[in-house]
Amino acid sequence: NSVEKMIVSDERDRVVSDWIKLNVGGKHFVTSRSTLLAKEPLSMLARMFADDNNMYLMNPSVTDETGAYLIDRSPEYFEPILNYLRHGEVILDKHVNPKGVLEEAVFFGLDSMIPQLNQLIEEALSRSSNNQSLT
Amino acid sequence: NSVEKMIVSDERDRVVSDWIKLNVGGKHFVTSRSTLLAKEPLSMLARMFADDNNMYLMNPSVTDETGAYLIDRSPEYFEPILNYLRHGEVILDKHVNPKGVLEEAVFFGLDSMIPQLNQLIEEALSRSSNNQSLT
Amino acid sequence: NSVEKMIVSDERDRVVSDWIKLNVGGKHFVTSRSTLLAKEPLSMLARMFADDNNMYLMNPSVTDETGAYLIDRSPEYFEPILNYLRHGEVILDKHVNPKGVLEEAVFFGLDSMIPQLNQLIEEALSRSSNNQSLT
Amino acid sequence: NSVEKMIVSDERDRVVSDWIKLNVGGKHFVTSRSTLLAKEPLSMLARMFADDNNMYLMNPSVTDETGAYLIDRSPEYFEPILNYLRHGEVILDKHVNPKGVLEEAVFFGLDSMIPQLNQLIEEALSRSSNNQSLT
Amino acid sequence: NSVEKMIVSDERDRVVSDWIKLNVGGKHFVTSRSTLLAKEPLSMLARMFADDNNMYLMNPSVTDETGAYLIDRSPEYFEPILNYLRHGEVILDKHVNPKGVLEEAVFFGLDSMIPQLNQLIEEALSRSSNNQSLT
Repeated sequence: NSVEKMIVSDERDRVVSDWIKLNVGGKHFVTSRSTLLAKEPLSMLARMFADDNNMYLMNPSVTDETGAYLIDRSPEYFEPILNYLRHGEVILDKHVNPKGVLEEAVFFGLDSMIPQLNQLIEEALSRSSNNQSLT
Repeated sequence: NSVEKMIVSDERDRVVSDWIKLNVGGKHFVTSRSTLLAKEPLSMLARMFADDNNMYLMNPSVTDETGAYLIDRSPEYFEPILNYLRHGEVILDKHVNPKGVLEEAVFFGLDSMIPQLNQLIEEALSRSSNNQSLT
Repeated sequence: NSVEKMIVSDERDRVVSDWIKLNVGGKHFVTSRSTLLAKEPLSMLARMFADDNNMYLMNPSVTDETGAYLIDRSPEYFEPILNYLRHGEVILDKHVNPKGVLEEAVFFGLDSMIPQLNQLIEEALSRSSNNQSLT
Repeated sequence: NSVEKMIVSDERDRVVSDWIKLNVGGKHFVTSRSTLLAKEPLSMLARMFADDNNMYLMNPSVTDETGAYLIDRSPEYFEPILNYLRHGEVILDKHVNPKGVLEEAVFFGLDSMIPQLNQLIEEALSRSSNNQSLT
Repeated sequence: NSVEKMIVSDERDRVVSDWIKLNVGGKHFVTSRSTLLAKEPLSMLARMFADDNNMYLMNPSVTDETGAYLIDRSPEYFEPILNYLRHGEVILDKHVNPKGVLEEAVFFGLDSMIPQLNQLIEEALSRSSNNQSLT
């Protein structure tokens, strides 16, 4: 289960290399290879960090001076994306615009997030038109 | 009491090593071993940093280049978790989604937080359905 | 399409130099040359990082000690600007003042953003006067 | 007055050492000794950084690799605490939970903040029960 | 106009030294000398970074290890202050307490901001008492 993946096992080298640093638009994120691979094997992030025998393998991007893979996208809207890969729930704070997260889900090819994000966008729209109709 | 634990005592080396750096999803946190251990001895964080004679001892994760232990979880929702370990209160800012904090409490095995977080989630739901029924 | 631009191709040197670091008011952003150029070729950012044969070419600003180009503007309001250059949508979080983003769009010469930002400003004004008239 | 304390005087060494770096829970803050001492001489921060002839003198905590004194508390809720020490006003942003700031004021022994924070907590409670009663 | 000031001219040395780093309460800001001087010549920031022939010249504060001038004030509320110096508009996000910005405007001697901030404070007060009277 999810706790195990953070333990240092005897095969220390293999485990260490399973930590992956990302530089998304200037902000650093740290995660594990299994988080990027498990949820959606055909997503861009899964393909970038997949095993060599994955037929959809993509080359990862270049890394910055700290070894973090560069990704030219919004860091703010990447946070709920990465949390979704960690635990499978779409969770947004109140002030976050779901349209911003939708753009990232589409870009990264995380198709399973899209219906939930579309629903959050509709709810926000109906709330806002309710407020209008109050006056 | 809580002030004492930050004082440099004569046994300086022991005290210094009681400060623990965590790298949660790319963000650094600093806390003390006693904060991680005191509140819930069977939680994952307590077991990672417990004394050797703790029978539930877990190996801590690997550290980054600054010596911070890597944890593949959300930094934003970790903040109220760590504050809870510091003073025992579940305190969330207005914009923070309690569902996000619940995911972390479950992951880290902080069972005593869960009833309060579930209540905050229900309150948010009833507020939102009240707003709906206004129209 | 947008995925391709992050792949390391055989011409590694060319691709690496297409990553651009910006230091906007003290905060670092990372993006790609194509993001800065594609959307509005006459904008200030496009002219600063354009090819030599662009007749509107501007000299880029000086860089800081990390190689990031210095820009004396608001980092907070630059984020939706850069996201717009990435995917073409004007997306603002709920708490962000659209007037702040408008100032940056005007400064950087991103004329296509301005009508949408003006509309967001008007909507915020009408919401606020609705609230007033409720009492 | 408050401007003077930032001027480099002829006694440069003395003034430089009056700047104090704090590492609160992983985030760095910079302030001056006089800010920490002036408002509440018996508070924990005042006693940690007081002159040697202060009879309530405490030993400061250990410092991190940048010379910042480590404090195992919430960085977010420390911000209004430090602003209070700078200018004497309790000022919270709209989204900040006053209960979080109260925990820090109690921990640091800033008794003069407590009545104002209790009032903000009561106001938030009555606002929330008003919202309930609307339905 | 404002674009020109960021161009590298032939007199490179002069232009480079016109970039100024500030460390406000622990957070780094980058701006230009002309931004600090142009709007209010008698403000504290203008006097700290003015030319030698300015009769109100103040000595700047000491710098940190990165060359940033130390200022013992709130970084959060400094952001709208610096944006005001950049473009002349008082623009606050929805969650920002205008009282916090007022404290900084008074400290830095930016008198032209004060009437607008007082108006924002009054508007927030009347909004909050309207909400009360709804119940």
